[in-house]
Amino acid sequence: MEKYEAPIEDMNFVLTQLLNFESYLKSVNNNQITTDSVKMIIEEASKFATEELDSINHIGDQEGIKLENGIVRMPETFVKAYKKFVKNGWFSIIGENEYGGQNLPLSVIAIINEIWQSANISFASNNMLTQGAIELLESHGNEKQKIEYLPNLISGEWSGTMNLTEPHAGSDLSSIKTKAIKKDNKYYIKGTKIYITHGDQDMSDNIIHLVLAKLDGAPKGVKGISLFLVPKYFINQSGAKSKNDIKVVSIEKKLGHHASPTCVLSFGDNDGAMGELIGEPNQGLKAMFTMMNNARLSVGVQGLAISERAYQKALYFSKERKQGSSLDKNISGTVEIIKHPDVKRMLMEMRAQIEAMRGLTITTGNFIDKYKNSPNSSEGKDNLFISNFLTPIVKAWCTDQSIYITSLGVQIHGGMGFIEDTGAAQYYRDARILPIYEGTNGIQALDLLRRKLFQENGQTYIKVLKKLEKTANLALRENNKEINEIGNLLLNCVDTLKNTSLWLIKKYKENPLQAASGATPYLNMFGWALGGWIMVDSAVKAQGIIKKDNNSKFAKEKINTSLFYCNTYLPFAISLENTIKKSYYPLENFA
Amino acid sequence: MEKYEAPIEDMNFVLTQLLNFESYLKSVNNNQITTDSVKMIIEEASKFATEELDSINHIGDQEGIKLENGIVRMPETFVKAYKKFVKNGWFSIIGENEYGGQNLPLSVIAIINEIWQSANISFASNNMLTQGAIELLESHGNEKQKIEYLPNLISGEWSGTMNLTEPHAGSDLSSIKTKAIKKDNKYYIKGTKIYITHGDQDMSDNIIHLVLAKLDGAPKGVKGISLFLVPKYFINQSGAKSKNDIKVVSIEKKLGHHASPTCVLSFGDNDGAMGELIGEPNQGLKAMFTMMNNARLSVGVQGLAISERAYQKALYFSKERKQGSSLDKNISGTVEIIKHPDVKRMLMEMRAQIEAMRGLTITTGNFIDKYKNSPNSSEGKDNLFISNFLTPIVKAWCTDQSIYITSLGVQIHGGMGFIEDTGAAQYYRDARILPIYEGTNGIQALDLLRRKLFQENGQTYIKVLKKLEKTANLALRENNKEINEIGNLLLNCVDTLKNTSLWLIKKYKENPLQAASGATPYLNMFGWALGGWIMVDSAVKAQGIIKKDNNSKFAKEKINTSLFYCNTYLPFAISLENTIKKSYYPLENFA
Repeated sequence: MEKYEAPIEDMNFVLTQLLNFESYLKSVNNNQITTDSVKMIIEEASKFATEELDSINHIGDQEGIKLENGIVRMPETFVKAYKKFVKNGWFSIIGENEYGGQNLPLSVIAIINEIWQSANISFASNNMLTQGAIELLESHGNEKQKIEYLPNLISGEWSGTMNLTEPHAGSDLSSIKTKAIKKDNKYYIKGTKIYITHGDQDMSDNIIHLVLAKLDGAPKGVKGISLFLVPKYFINQSGAKSKNDIKVVSIEKKLGHHASPTCVLSFGDNDGAMGELIGEPNQGLKAMFTMMNNARLSVGVQGLAISERAYQKALYFSKERKQGSSLDKNISGTVEIIKHPDVKRMLMEMRAQIEAMRGLTITTGNFIDKYKNSPNSSEGKDNLFISNFLTPIVKAWCTDQSIYITSLGVQIHGGMGFIEDTGAAQYYRDARILPIYEGTNGIQALDLLRRKLFQENGQTYIKVLKKLEKTANLALRENNKEINEIGNLLLNCVDTLKNTSLWLIKKYKENPLQAASGATPYLNMFGWALGGWIMVDSAVKAQGIIKKDNNSKFAKEKINTSLFYCNTYLPFAISLENTIKKSYYPLENFA
Repeated sequence: MEKYEAPIEDMNFVLTQLLNFESYLKSVNNNQITTDSVKMIIEEASKFATEELDSINHIGDQEGIKLENGIVRMPETFVKAYKKFVKNGWFSIIGENEYGGQNLPLSVIAIINEIWQSANISFASNNMLTQGAIELLESHGNEKQKIEYLPNLISGEWSGTMNLTEPHAGSDLSSIKTKAIKKDNKYYIKGTKIYITHGDQDMSDNIIHLVLAKLDGAPKGVKGISLFLVPKYFINQSGAKSKNDIKVVSIEKKLGHHASPTCVLSFGDNDGAMGELIGEPNQGLKAMFTMMNNARLSVGVQGLAISERAYQKALYFSKERKQGSSLDKNISGTVEIIKHPDVKRMLMEMRAQIEAMRGLTITTGNFIDKYKNSPNSSEGKDNLFISNFLTPIVKAWCTDQSIYITSLGVQIHGGMGFIEDTGAAQYYRDARILPIYEGTNGIQALDLLRRKLFQENGQTYIKVLKKLEKTANLALRENNKEINEIGNLLLNCVDTLKNTSLWLIKKYKENPLQAASGATPYLNMFGWALGGWIMVDSAVKAQGIIKKDNNSKFAKEKINTSLFYCNTYLPFAISLENTIKKSYYPLENFA
């Protein structure tokens, strides 16, 4: 029976080789963890994921969830797994020490999150949302709120949700209608929220809803939105629970994520759902956005994770399934389909993209870590700006590619891929929400163009490109023709990115509609180039390993995958220049 | 309420402008139809599709099919629609006149099939399979078989199926195990067939199964496969039915095509399922393959059709849905999302690809028509070879793109796209089988590389490229800079294709495994280039229209779409050269 195992060796390679994690830990005086202890955590997570989460993923998809008498019922297996997840302390990898968290670096959290999301994306969505709630409360909650809510969220006994969208306010939050009425120093929330992931479930003891709403007399638009904490239950000193005025109206029938409840919640059908204000009045969207940046990284990780899972399944199948004879005349009889060049090519595509994504997500986490460790130094600020720049790219590029990769996963299974029992189709369905939620990929591209490209007066992208150049030049210095070639490809790519970025900056000022037409291909170009940066660096570091150990199978494979990535995708990235500059056509075409 | 309408204007444009259908009809002395009568047929088909097929598509998906006491039960709405479809004579657009068929040219059939497949792919799959059975019987049945079976198949009172795959013989048919035992001049079939599309249903009065099986003592492998006609029912002179020895073992639970039964059929559990031999013993695969070529074109049409349907739905939504404000400061308030440049770009991508596909599928049908009208002339043979060359490209390229396009369709719907009730997700699910069945797209790429590229000693691809060159040169002669530019892009593309084809021919002889690693990107390169050919030609023809009618909205839009297509996809096609040449990496990566 095929089952998920975390790609531990590759994860460690990114940490130790690409990030030089050991010296990072030293530089930030982090004595709590070592590369060895992190390795152990990853190994334990992998074991838990295989045994407890991957094993129930397909059942969850087939069984789905039920809304019974206003309560969302999860599959029984999920309820059990949740208790174990809490008991084993997996929620608390994030969160400050004083509230019970282990406060691991984001680079490590990205790795562990990948593991959960690979094994069971419906289950892990709950964890992802709670992580967001913890982060938000740590940044914007007051001391009393932190003490009251953080310990239970960090332990996972309670979980968290984000309540933004309303029926007529999807991507555009300025038009939300949910109201917050202040009475006797308390806030009463009234309104309907849709698409609330894990908006109700019977796994955690309580649910802490973070809700965007408008105070009476608040300014119009985004400047009048406040943020409230609205618990499902109030629990008094003696532990007695009383229910807040929140109703689960319905759960959505979705393409995927069948075991992740997506709820329509009605707040305050009776007297109003009682809540607390988080942060200052009318500053809710800002608070939500500081959280969202990391949430976008988390969704990028979901794209990577579901791709990895689809890859593992397809790889297993292609080694088991025998069909057809080889084109190699020295091989006789029916062969495993992995021996057919086109199947191998599909697997190489999946693997090369996945390794590039993994390097990029962990590296982005590391930039944020470095900023957090030194928020006021000029280097720290650089790291913040760079991570800001990378985040929309990570979110959109990794999730767009997850559609392609999970589709290849189905393809490799042939006819069996279309049969639900096989399981490959689930990843294809589950992946499809990732380019949509947490800001559609089109919105990520606009964010990149309008905000991030103009950040620091247009200096951030230059700083990013300098890093790519530096890596490309390292590759040119290697005594290996093929690695020199991909170094040159990366340099060409950097040149094209420079020209195109300048063109876009200019064009955006002249004609924002035209510039915005090229936003998505521009984000893609950057995504493929950043992946190239990771893979060229990987090849260089793998060469370093080979110099010490000529037999390293991992390093040899890494070089192959790097060459494949760069030769396949960097010419494509370069070709996007024309697309970016010529994507603008009149609306009349659709009149 | 959004509903499907056939893109009649574009269909007519391809016929009258790209193919010059009027003079084609004259040249082949076809007096039975005119461009006007074809236009009327298309209009009628569109009406039927909207009212009877599109309207039940989503219900069919949600209701699905049931296996009750060994009988497959279709949704009731489908049974009713089928009767009307037969009554209105829609089955009989193909088939020779003497058996009741209208024998329309394949170019027109491609158009009408697109309409059915857009409106309801589960329903239309039945029609597609029956068309294949008719074609096969016309080519390989004897006179008695033609008289006995063709009239009822052509009328649609009976339908047809193809029985190839077995549990251990998917893509590789050489290993099939189903047996045919000859006794008293009759054949008794015993064996299990899987993935039988519309293998059973309660819409038609009878089902004619075409079954691959092995005669006793037949040679091993593909040279020992014979073809049998095995009816579900035997019907005697007085109309009394008796059931053949065929059992529906199960129906598959699939990702899509929920209202198209995919059956496991057991032939001959008792005495054997009685059948007739079609053609000569051991020549079954050859017979199946002559049919398959057109079936591959039909699947390419399915890719086009589901893309068109997804496009129409997304276009409608993007004009209805208001969200966010415009980047254009002259426009105030919330705008329809089509006014956001990135949404428009997605719609342009969908539309441009769809129009290229449509032109290519109809043109390919026309090559086959021209061959059929003059099979022995040297021009006729050219047309056969060219259509042989184009067919795997049409099948694979159009279906691969259907995954991307239906995915864009979901994306444009935002969060609603992920909700099944919206309907966009169904097209994304339904499309996913197309790159798999009727020969996986990997197999199409191998067919292109190993057979079609070497056809006529490597002359066919040169003939194809000459057509592209000719069109490109027409574009260079236009007094329009933008059209000149895309003419040049197409010429560059032709050059790259020439070099790459030569490289592949040489490489295949030296190292077939390496060449085969580039087969899929090579097919893609050709697909995008052929699409470019269609679109450059379209731009030239649209210029012609504008010269006569400066206000033609259709022609202006066509030029925009052509420019978008060529500027976006031809640079990508050209960039694939590196990919093709460097896709070969050792298997050890996956050891």
